[in-house]
Amino acid sequence: MAPIEFWFDLSSPYSYLASRWIGPLAQRHGRTVDWKPLLLGAAFKVTGLPVLVDTPLKGDYSRHDFARSARFAGVPYRQPEPFPISTVHAARGVLWLQRTDPARAEPFIHAAFGAYFVDNQDLSAPAVLARLTREMGIDPAAFAAAVQQAEFKDALRRQVDTALARGIFGAPFIVIDGEPFWGNDRQAQVERWLSGGPF
Amino acid sequence: MAPIEFWFDLSSPYSYLASRWIGPLAQRHGRTVDWKPLLLGAAFKVTGLPVLVDTPLKGDYSRHDFARSARFAGVPYRQPEPFPISTVHAARGVLWLQRTDPARAEPFIHAAFGAYFVDNQDLSAPAVLARLTREMGIDPAAFAAAVQQAEFKDALRRQVDTALARGIFGAPFIVIDGEPFWGNDRQAQVERWLSGGPF
Repeated sequence: MAPIEFWFDLSSPYSYLASRWIGPLAQRHGRTVDWKPLLLGAAFKVTGLPVLVDTPLKGDYSRHDFARSARFAGVPYRQPEPFPISTVHAARGVLWLQRTDPARAEPFIHAAFGAYFVDNQDLSAPAVLARLTREMGIDPAAFAAAVQQAEFKDALRRQVDTALARGIFGAPFIVIDGEPFWGNDRQAQVERWLSGGPF
Repeated sequence: MAPIEFWFDLSSPYSYLASRWIGPLAQRHGRTVDWKPLLLGAAFKVTGLPVLVDTPLKGDYSRHDFARSARFAGVPYRQPEPFPISTVHAARGVLWLQRTDPARAEPFIHAAFGAYFVDNQDLSAPAVLARLTREMGIDPAAFAAAVQQAEFKDALRRQVDTALARGIFGAPFIVIDGEPFWGNDRQAQVERWLSGGPF
């Protein structure tokens, strides 16, 4: 069966929450997860939508809901500041790992989410990415070099363009055999789609 | 125990879906529902957000998700056209019923949601509201007169202002003892809040 596509931005709280259940859920249904970083900033340019936490009224509610949704899921969460941040380097790093050291790509994604949303370390800071990679046995210098290479700049740009061309406008965005599900709160629908087929 | 506030717009698909479960859920927890119509158009002016279905990419997804979420919930749904519509007359009519014939207010709300989202009757049309009220034993002429009265124009305006002042920016919006929940997809959190208390 085809892998489940999991589109995410490492600066997206709901992507973080969904990153905690998508793997076990896929496994229960004999699927793997294709982890696909994107950049929400690029999507916002196309949809014309503002950054969530900058939206009047909705922004305040969202901060409350991030933390409550984490408690609901039993997942640790501390609201990071600054928020949101640029995840372009981290995302290119994911693509580099997926190409050169695939076994470490998914652990890096989980570590990066945890660094930002639990330990409140700024993933846009090179020093944070260096420490994170070093702790995982990834060469920090090679990581830092890769995220500046045209190959991975282009790869991420193409991936974001592909997402937008396919109507993927937010994160997390889950695609199962072509069926799109947007948001951490589509977990129950995703579960039923996998267990019972299309509805 | 205090009633559960259920803020809704009669032109909002997710409000319609939530209107089908909020009553039984409240009842299971010994609560009543305070049905509070608002106007999403006024909220969009404050948040600066566009109408959902007019948002690039997100609009197409949303139409797909309205129908799928209805199937998921086992609720009949046909995408109405035109969509969205002005619900200002219907909303004033709800306030009039709540003041003058409260036993018919909630049945009217369910009938109006069904008329629009199942039978695709345009609730902004006076003839549709006349037929709907007549079928329910409500005097259509009194209804039509009430929705033009300053008393109910003012009452709806005040209700929308109150919503916005309290940070209620969308629909459905559910408030339980001061705790805000936005969206049909917060059903599971609402359920847990009612059964287990704050989390």
